[in-house]
Amino acid sequence: MKRAIFFSLITWCVESVAIAKVRLPPKAVTMREILAASNPEDWRPLDPNRTLYLELSSGRVVIELAPEQAPNHVANIEALTREKYFDGLAILRAQDNYVVQWGDPKADDKAKRRPIVRAKPMLKAEFVRPSSGMPFTPLDDRDTYAPEVGFSNGFPAARDAKSNQAWLTHCYGMVGAGRDEDADSGGGTELYVVIGHAPRHLDRNVTLVGRVVSGIELLSTMPRGGGAMGFYEQEKDRLPILSVKVAADLPENERSHLELMRTDTPTFAKLIESRRNRKESWYKVQAGHIEICNVPLPVRVKAQLAPKP
Amino acid sequence: MKRAIFFSLITWCVESVAIAKVRLPPKAVTMREILAASNPEDWRPLDPNRTLYLELSSGRVVIELAPEQAPNHVANIEALTREKYFDGLAILRAQDNYVVQWGDPKADDKAKRRPIVRAKPMLKAEFVRPSSGMPFTPLDDRDTYAPEVGFSNGFPAARDAKSNQAWLTHCYGMVGAGRDEDADSGGGTELYVVIGHAPRHLDRNVTLVGRVVSGIELLSTMPRGGGAMGFYEQEKDRLPILSVKVAADLPENERSHLELMRTDTPTFAKLIESRRNRKESWYKVQAGHIEICNVPLPVRVKAQLAPKP
Repeated sequence: MKRAIFFSLITWCVESVAIAKVRLPPKAVTMREILAASNPEDWRPLDPNRTLYLELSSGRVVIELAPEQAPNHVANIEALTREKYFDGLAILRAQDNYVVQWGDPKADDKAKRRPIVRAKPMLKAEFVRPSSGMPFTPLDDRDTYAPEVGFSNGFPAARDAKSNQAWLTHCYGMVGAGRDEDADSGGGTELYVVIGHAPRHLDRNVTLVGRVVSGIELLSTMPRGGGAMGFYEQEKDRLPILSVKVAADLPENERSHLELMRTDTPTFAKLIESRRNRKESWYKVQAGHIEICNVPLPVRVKAQLAPKP
Repeated sequence: MKRAIFFSLITWCVESVAIAKVRLPPKAVTMREILAASNPEDWRPLDPNRTLYLELSSGRVVIELAPEQAPNHVANIEALTREKYFDGLAILRAQDNYVVQWGDPKADDKAKRRPIVRAKPMLKAEFVRPSSGMPFTPLDDRDTYAPEVGFSNGFPAARDAKSNQAWLTHCYGMVGAGRDEDADSGGGTELYVVIGHAPRHLDRNVTLVGRVVSGIELLSTMPRGGGAMGFYEQEKDRLPILSVKVAADLPENERSHLELMRTDTPTFAKLIESRRNRKESWYKVQAGHIEICNVPLPVRVKAQLAPKP
């Protein structure tokens, strides 16, 4: 009996230590403290094979693609990128509190529009995917739009157990594939980024393909277009796209070396809690809740490159 | 008996016609159609006594103040405005997906800061007010942060029956009075505008004093500040404030003549429904819900000024 208790105690101690190892110091209660106390395991490098660089005269916008959610769109956008489809096209639209969108200004002119060589001009919609088999860390807060929200591979997402459907949510910075009236008229030739309050009514109506992880301010500060829906009416108002590149196609020294906080760890859960109930003394009332699009998804510059083998 | 039925029918007809007069045509199902079919009674003129003009070199930002929610702050901001406190001060901060803020760059320097003559430098917080006695049109959708949300005098708001408290919600375009650590350290000398996803964790932590009804794009496109929390680090980066004026203090021909859609009418209820379940054929899935900060609060230029007496 004593021996059993002894072994239980050992087991408990070992488990406690194991937990303690991944636990943050108890003093880390604000986001700043949690980030400072985070472990290398709390972060993942941005995979260059699923990363786009949108190069503008004002700088680089870095986009992480979401092949788990929209495999065909992501493959097609990479194909378009690799045949330089986007190079020399332009930002076409900036609508306040909504989206910035880019593509071919002459897309509607069959004679003048940019030809597509190997990629596809249109694809079947990938608005939703089966929720079964999709990694999902639920957020314990009610959502106005979806039965359940949470995070999947670092992206804000929603799922519906009844229909076995899951989808990404239109939070600030999310990137989607514009389409015409037909659900299957997208494909990635026109892409938009959310630059305002999350337009969640677009969820399941457009294929979301990724999110901006760096440089969104280059898009969110664009002068708003004077035409309907924020389209620029004059060619001179459109900001040209210098190029779009897949990060893996650039030499290492030209890449942006970023790390993203994992969204399936105890540290991330603690970070969510630190934002749900703010402990900074400035706050007089704790919200007690957090909305999916208010959860920060931290990005940092990789402190030190791993030494090469 | 027949007579009674006859009179009932008359009453029914009269009532039907009366209802029909304020009802929109049944075909008006999209926001565009509802706006086009709206009646003059669906709109209210912007009251010049509760309107501020923030004049920048890029144009005019029009702010409707909310004296029903923050009477002391609104009175103090008008007093500050009338003693030209803000004229020549600057936009101090632009933080992406958060706020733009203005005030005195030298506020922390007792010797150099702008003197306040008649207004007050600080005021007791007006984070909440009693919900009893406050007009409130509830929104029938669940909210992540508050037990109940809706609209009060044209502003997005929340209330809690249990505590008898009501407050404005931090939606895009809302204007608040910045403060230091102490809850009672605000007062209106520094004002901020929400330019990103609604930071609802600020609800009940700051006194909201109004909302931008025109010109928000002049603020939302400001280059983001390079310092902590988006503060501009260099004087040259700060956009000067030409002046702030109470609309009533300007001659009529220098005022912005705007009308706001009332939020307590059947037309506004219909508008909400048109956004909860979008009938435009582009939409393939109806959201079925709408979040308080996604409800549009339409503003229009007054079509025709009433003839002067």
